[in-house]
Amino acid sequence: MSSTMQNKASLPVIKRLPKYYRYLSNLQADGRDKISSSELARMMGTTASQVRQDFNCFGGFGQQGYGYNVRTLLSEIKSILALDREHSVVIVGAGNIGHALTNFEGFASAGFKVLALFDVNPELVGKEIKGRPVYASSELEDFIRTHDVDIGVIAARRSAAQGIADRMVQAGIKGIWNFVPIDLVAAVPIENVHLNDSLSELSYKIEHGVLND
Amino acid sequence: MSSTMQNKASLPVIKRLPKYYRYLSNLQADGRDKISSSELARMMGTTASQVRQDFNCFGGFGQQGYGYNVRTLLSEIKSILALDREHSVVIVGAGNIGHALTNFEGFASAGFKVLALFDVNPELVGKEIKGRPVYASSELEDFIRTHDVDIGVIAARRSAAQGIADRMVQAGIKGIWNFVPIDLVAAVPIENVHLNDSLSELSYKIEHGVLND
Repeated sequence: MSSTMQNKASLPVIKRLPKYYRYLSNLQADGRDKISSSELARMMGTTASQVRQDFNCFGGFGQQGYGYNVRTLLSEIKSILALDREHSVVIVGAGNIGHALTNFEGFASAGFKVLALFDVNPELVGKEIKGRPVYASSELEDFIRTHDVDIGVIAARRSAAQGIADRMVQAGIKGIWNFVPIDLVAAVPIENVHLNDSLSELSYKIEHGVLND
Repeated sequence: MSSTMQNKASLPVIKRLPKYYRYLSNLQADGRDKISSSELARMMGTTASQVRQDFNCFGGFGQQGYGYNVRTLLSEIKSILALDREHSVVIVGAGNIGHALTNFEGFASAGFKVLALFDVNPELVGKEIKGRPVYASSELEDFIRTHDVDIGVIAARRSAAQGIADRMVQAGIKGIWNFVPIDLVAAVPIENVHLNDSLSELSYKIEHGVLND
């Protein structure tokens, strides 16, 4: 991608890109060759004009009327999302969530490689979780520096999370995937997975009968 | 909550409620008694007028100028989110994610009780995961009916997910928490946790240097 193109993509467009990617992956898995903007829009609950507008942010892709080639479009979006190259990952917090993420299918399918976990619990340090070593939390910075780690997953205690983020950033991490229910502050991109928020929203929707999203 | 109040809350307001709840929970944990709308707004990265407008959807809560009582406000929002009563939960798919969710702290802290897991794998059926029984997937509807289950978590295979959702709804489930990377269709509220989408968005932000959210 040229640097001029990214400037055209607003946050709502950026947020829709992974969804396009997911739908196109599923279409390709189902053996589809072509898809029109209107059919893609219908599947995704949006409009054909929205789809074309979104894709125009990245230079278009394929012809209107004739439809998009699924494989080409998927590969273009994959490249824009930078999912066409390997990312290295460390996970801090080898508890419940950290443990599950070690084997998260989505990492492998997106070319993300979990190198190691870190924990403060001496009973976990030195062990392996699904083939990955668990190191002492104090070794985090050194590891990030020597292995040029791209992404730090934070699945630690709430009180420790901001400190971990600070140390990650100082050691040169490029982005943070946060599973702790606080909004971290950092000078690198952060994605929060606030499971409690999602559960609370579901609870509200059930109580008040809210169906749509 | 009266039924007239819910009609005033638009989806963006609903989506902010869990965030208010999270910040107020943290404030209470830190021993804070009072908070002004402007301080709460600053913490949450919004404006005081937005906070007051949001709260007005639910009848106000407390006085402007003097600030809000943290405990009262927390308890009001907890009630609006229906987190002040017990919910029963079943998890379909006893794999990596289903396993981790069985012990998810957020369930306990929100009064959600995981009653059982369901799986098609005969090697898992009959076993226990963290004290919860794993039943055969075929027993799902009966269990939901006899135990009047509120929430169904779907952490199964992509190809099975929509079928499971259909069966849950038919058996009387009240809401679905979906961890499968497809958008399910159902006549009850659904909350999707699309981990792959979140990871793709992080990848994009790192590649293109997008910091804010």
